[in-house]
Amino acid sequence: MQPYELSLAAAARQIRARRLSPVELVDSVLDRIEQVDPQVRAYVAVTAEQARGAAREAEREAARGVFRGPLHGVPAGLKDLIDVAGTPTTASSRVRAGHRAAADSTVAARLRAAGAVLVGKTHTHEFAYGLTTPQTGNAWDGGRVAGGSSGGSAVAVAAGAATFALGTDTGGSIRVPAALNGVVGLKPTYGLVPRHGITSLSWSLDHVGPITRTVEDAALVLTALAGHDPRDPASVDRPAVDHRPEQEPDLTGVRVGVPGNYYFDHVDAEVAAAVRRAVAQLEALGTRLVEVDIPMTRYIQAIQWGLMVPEATAYHERTLRTVPELYQADVRILLEAGELMGAGDYLRAQRARTLMRGEWNRILEEVDVIAAPAVPMTAVRVGQETATWPDGTTEQVSDAYVRLSSPANITGLPALSVPVGHDTAGLPIGMQLLGRPFDERTLLRVGHAYERTQPARVLAPLAAPATPVAPE
Amino acid sequence: MQPYELSLAAAARQIRARRLSPVELVDSVLDRIEQVDPQVRAYVAVTAEQARGAAREAEREAARGVFRGPLHGVPAGLKDLIDVAGTPTTASSRVRAGHRAAADSTVAARLRAAGAVLVGKTHTHEFAYGLTTPQTGNAWDGGRVAGGSSGGSAVAVAAGAATFALGTDTGGSIRVPAALNGVVGLKPTYGLVPRHGITSLSWSLDHVGPITRTVEDAALVLTALAGHDPRDPASVDRPAVDHRPEQEPDLTGVRVGVPGNYYFDHVDAEVAAAVRRAVAQLEALGTRLVEVDIPMTRYIQAIQWGLMVPEATAYHERTLRTVPELYQADVRILLEAGELMGAGDYLRAQRARTLMRGEWNRILEEVDVIAAPAVPMTAVRVGQETATWPDGTTEQVSDAYVRLSSPANITGLPALSVPVGHDTAGLPIGMQLLGRPFDERTLLRVGHAYERTQPARVLAPLAAPATPVAPE
Repeated sequence: MQPYELSLAAAARQIRARRLSPVELVDSVLDRIEQVDPQVRAYVAVTAEQARGAAREAEREAARGVFRGPLHGVPAGLKDLIDVAGTPTTASSRVRAGHRAAADSTVAARLRAAGAVLVGKTHTHEFAYGLTTPQTGNAWDGGRVAGGSSGGSAVAVAAGAATFALGTDTGGSIRVPAALNGVVGLKPTYGLVPRHGITSLSWSLDHVGPITRTVEDAALVLTALAGHDPRDPASVDRPAVDHRPEQEPDLTGVRVGVPGNYYFDHVDAEVAAAVRRAVAQLEALGTRLVEVDIPMTRYIQAIQWGLMVPEATAYHERTLRTVPELYQADVRILLEAGELMGAGDYLRAQRARTLMRGEWNRILEEVDVIAAPAVPMTAVRVGQETATWPDGTTEQVSDAYVRLSSPANITGLPALSVPVGHDTAGLPIGMQLLGRPFDERTLLRVGHAYERTQPARVLAPLAAPATPVAPE
Repeated sequence: MQPYELSLAAAARQIRARRLSPVELVDSVLDRIEQVDPQVRAYVAVTAEQARGAAREAEREAARGVFRGPLHGVPAGLKDLIDVAGTPTTASSRVRAGHRAAADSTVAARLRAAGAVLVGKTHTHEFAYGLTTPQTGNAWDGGRVAGGSSGGSAVAVAAGAATFALGTDTGGSIRVPAALNGVVGLKPTYGLVPRHGITSLSWSLDHVGPITRTVEDAALVLTALAGHDPRDPASVDRPAVDHRPEQEPDLTGVRVGVPGNYYFDHVDAEVAAAVRRAVAQLEALGTRLVEVDIPMTRYIQAIQWGLMVPEATAYHERTLRTVPELYQADVRILLEAGELMGAGDYLRAQRARTLMRGEWNRILEEVDVIAAPAVPMTAVRVGQETATWPDGTTEQVSDAYVRLSSPANITGLPALSVPVGHDTAGLPIGMQLLGRPFDERTLLRVGHAYERTQPARVLAPLAAPATPVAPE
């Protein structure tokens, strides 16, 4: 097994045990990028020089027995909305030509402080305003969409081109590409991970979080990222928590809510079946299944768009006037639509969000987590714009991908996407676990317990032959 | 001394000691209303029958030694935005003709539970959307404005026509009329007192709170009103607090912030002098004065109006379309203006509010309270629309009255208005104390300590000769 194939937890353990050197690991990942990125196009820019320098430094420290933190020497990709001092944050947009970040974002600084080595910036749907990431190909089938907007990060992790990555999630942009590429994606509770230094799409819905190969890896990254930073006005000040799950978690008595409505409506049969099998597995692990009724479902789309559209437009106000031609047409049209929205629509969306948050919190008094599909269908072919459901209705692909994710953005609840197998075309399927505010620990515990019952996951079968991701 | 002249604390003590009967007190207040209300027009409706019935019931209970709570048998007026089951909530508007509240608002129910006797509904500026309350005359000079929008409540308390009253405050509507009529007004921290059953002006700025004759009285009422109610989405769930100040509070070491900017700019010289004398009195009581710099002052007005205007319009959306002619012209114009506001303006106001809240909270790490004028000038003559300042600038009267109050609405911080004397025309002057979120206790302690150093306050000199308000 090559170092690039290791999970984050396994790589970190081997580095700490001095059985793997940071230089060896980073070189392995950089070689892998060179090999596969021309095919998947996950990266906007690879900072190989700096990464090799940081790896040598990490190796020298390790030789002295100094380990900065649990991510010491582990290579990471950052979605290119996230500032890294001295490098451009392109947002995968021509609007950002000539950009150069003056300082690290909070999350970049925290990853470095925990020892991570930044290897490059990954593609986003332009300014995170879309669900496909057209520059990037799906790791399992290059003719299919990567999902978005954190498509580059998910594909890099799925392809072995980063040991882990960060994404952002405004309507599903971590969970959708994680599900479509067979990796783990965590959207933390609103306010838990500071967004200072990250290009905003919609500040009341934006989140930043990890994309990893295992649930345990997500917990390791979250522990490094979480914590108050007053430079993000939404950041909350709470005691630090170690989010890592026990190695052998006991789920006895955990109440798992299974939606009786909404989350299994207009969902591909293979996706629904895989998620229901995973839910049955959770029951076999000792959880108690409880049917739950998802509230206010007919307002979800209106609230998501009612909040996101004017907030996105406000952020782009100036450039939309000065350089509209530099935006891709799909993004520019959405931004221009935001200029026409009245204050009344926006505030009604906010009020409805408050009500919806209350309703969800009530459900989460009765259950500890909710298990549901992450997305209603696996990765569609590039260029496919609509999906048709058995009842004859059709839906925009982007609406379909956002629909099961956005409730967690609207309510701010934490949500984890976990791979639960593949459809008959070989495309990955994701299950979504939603939990109580700031109770990531339960989500990660349930996800980890599920994951332990499954065969070791494989990297996406790109040029190199697929091999299992062993924990050690 | 007549019962209607008693402070709430004194009346409650005499009732509990069986030296005063609820019937006697309520009859005295109802007689006083009959005597003075034709002159001041504080009340929309007096519910004398029900009040007498409730007083008899309170008397029977007292005879059995049953006291519902600290307000047992004490008559109260409610601003006519506050629902009382079975009576109309007119909002002093023709739009509400035929209205009848189905149930008590949370605050009405809590006052009843604490034993208060509701004697009537007091005038508001139509739908609380103004700062004069044109129906009502100032208690100290009928040719001058009552202030608003809780003008009826403040005048009733100042005139002896209610032992205490409730008002609402969106940009100063409790503190402004309290200051202009020489009584105490408390705008509690946002989220402390539930607004369920109260007609909304602007839900993100609306507050409800007491108008009383003494600071101790305000503490008694606040203690009865505070506490979580999930039917107000902004209501917070916190442990109950007894807000009553110690009888002989010690202010040694309390840090009092005195604004070096904004709060004393464009303020009438007599008002500024009276507030500075009161601040010197606080220093004599052992507090430490600290000059503070008020942040983001040039955004205050834009934020207040940027939030209030579209929120008010959203509430009135339907009636503004169906019966626009029933609104007073000043209110209708403001509501119609709200229809033209874009989502971008509203969300920029919200973002600026978040920043301002952070800045104020930083100041309140360095001081315990901030002392400032409540309003920049005493009550203006009815019909006066602008104020002219010594530097030659002029200002709308409503802008002047709202300007020193709105920071506490924007930030949600608690703010108390306390009488600090009269100008040479005999008109009352108010000092405003602002404090940390949910730290009403410190505000009330400081206000009470100040009040104890002053001569007993007198009711407004209406038809009957003025007599001191004795504590017992």
